[in-house]
Amino acid sequence: MARWQPHAPERLLVAALELFEERGYENTTVVEITERAGLTKSTFFRYFPDKREVLFGGGAMTGLLVEGIDTAPAGAGPLEVVAHALDAIGREVFTADRRAFGARRSAVIAANPELREREALKELGLVAAMTDALKRRGSPDLTARVAAELGALAWKIAHERWRDAAGEDDFAELARRALTEVRAAGASCQRQAGSAGA
Amino acid sequence: MARWQPHAPERLLVAALELFEERGYENTTVVEITERAGLTKSTFFRYFPDKREVLFGGGAMTGLLVEGIDTAPAGAGPLEVVAHALDAIGREVFTADRRAFGARRSAVIAANPELREREALKELGLVAAMTDALKRRGSPDLTARVAAELGALAWKIAHERWRDAAGEDDFAELARRALTEVRAAGASCQRQAGSAGA
Repeated sequence: MARWQPHAPERLLVAALELFEERGYENTTVVEITERAGLTKSTFFRYFPDKREVLFGGGAMTGLLVEGIDTAPAGAGPLEVVAHALDAIGREVFTADRRAFGARRSAVIAANPELREREALKELGLVAAMTDALKRRGSPDLTARVAAELGALAWKIAHERWRDAAGEDDFAELARRALTEVRAAGASCQRQAGSAGA
Repeated sequence: MARWQPHAPERLLVAALELFEERGYENTTVVEITERAGLTKSTFFRYFPDKREVLFGGGAMTGLLVEGIDTAPAGAGPLEVVAHALDAIGREVFTADRRAFGARRSAVIAANPELREREALKELGLVAAMTDALKRRGSPDLTARVAAELGALAWKIAHERWRDAAGEDDFAELARRALTEVRAAGASCQRQAGSAGA
């Protein structure tokens, strides 16, 4: 019944993205996705609770981020720990061979309000997971929360640049650069007055 | 045809919240909401594009925040400007007489994935609107983005405390305190190393 299918989530993702591009998210059914992928409906629902989720990997990203935080060097500051987690994402998920695919995926999401909503909720979930992982390392509650928010912002900036870039920069490098910029922007936010234009 | 109905959005919100509490969001129709409010379906859709939106005020919050940013004193730093916007929200939206209602509304949203998704997307929209308003005042792009994210975080913390509090603190005061805490947490994130536990 639950026969193992090699690379089933990836095959379903590729099939779904093609169909969403061809006929729109609304006009595509789960059955059509599974037929295109050469898999069954029950395989689909073994991995994803609904049609939207196929674009969001069913939580794999959260696991990688948390593992990246857990395995960061002892004594690293909160933003260094976050950088370590973003490195892991660059190594495992946003690899050079997935860049064009990432751009197509982002375009499909941007075009559909339901997908944008799911993405927004996913983002909140990632921030919450990073916050919890930072707290387990000993960061105070709010420090962890701020570091996670700044990390998520660096992630978004890096991802925008990564998927749009014609260049050779890999995601981890873009994420480090974005985090440095976010850190500097955070420092300039700290100024109390007279700095709105600085 | 488009007869003006006094306080229509508020009446629809109250009716919707009651019904969502009584029978669940999924089991409530727009027609039932309008009947409970003594209004017509066309009045509902004049204010809100869909059933979910009735809980989110159709953009009024964004307008208030942006106005609060636009009217902050010249020369104020980005986070001071954000504090000014949160003051406006406390004055106009999260007033003492709406506290119990706010807690009920949050409970209904927390119980429903569709509503949580809409709330997550709203939050991204608010951050984007604050970012744009800060940029119009002259803040550099990323400084504006970070200040808006930190402002949204202070907002969330203040709102959690406001709706759960038995005390007398008003939202603006809670928001100022949360922003001070977020600012301090941001400063402690800036440390490069050896500070994960500090």
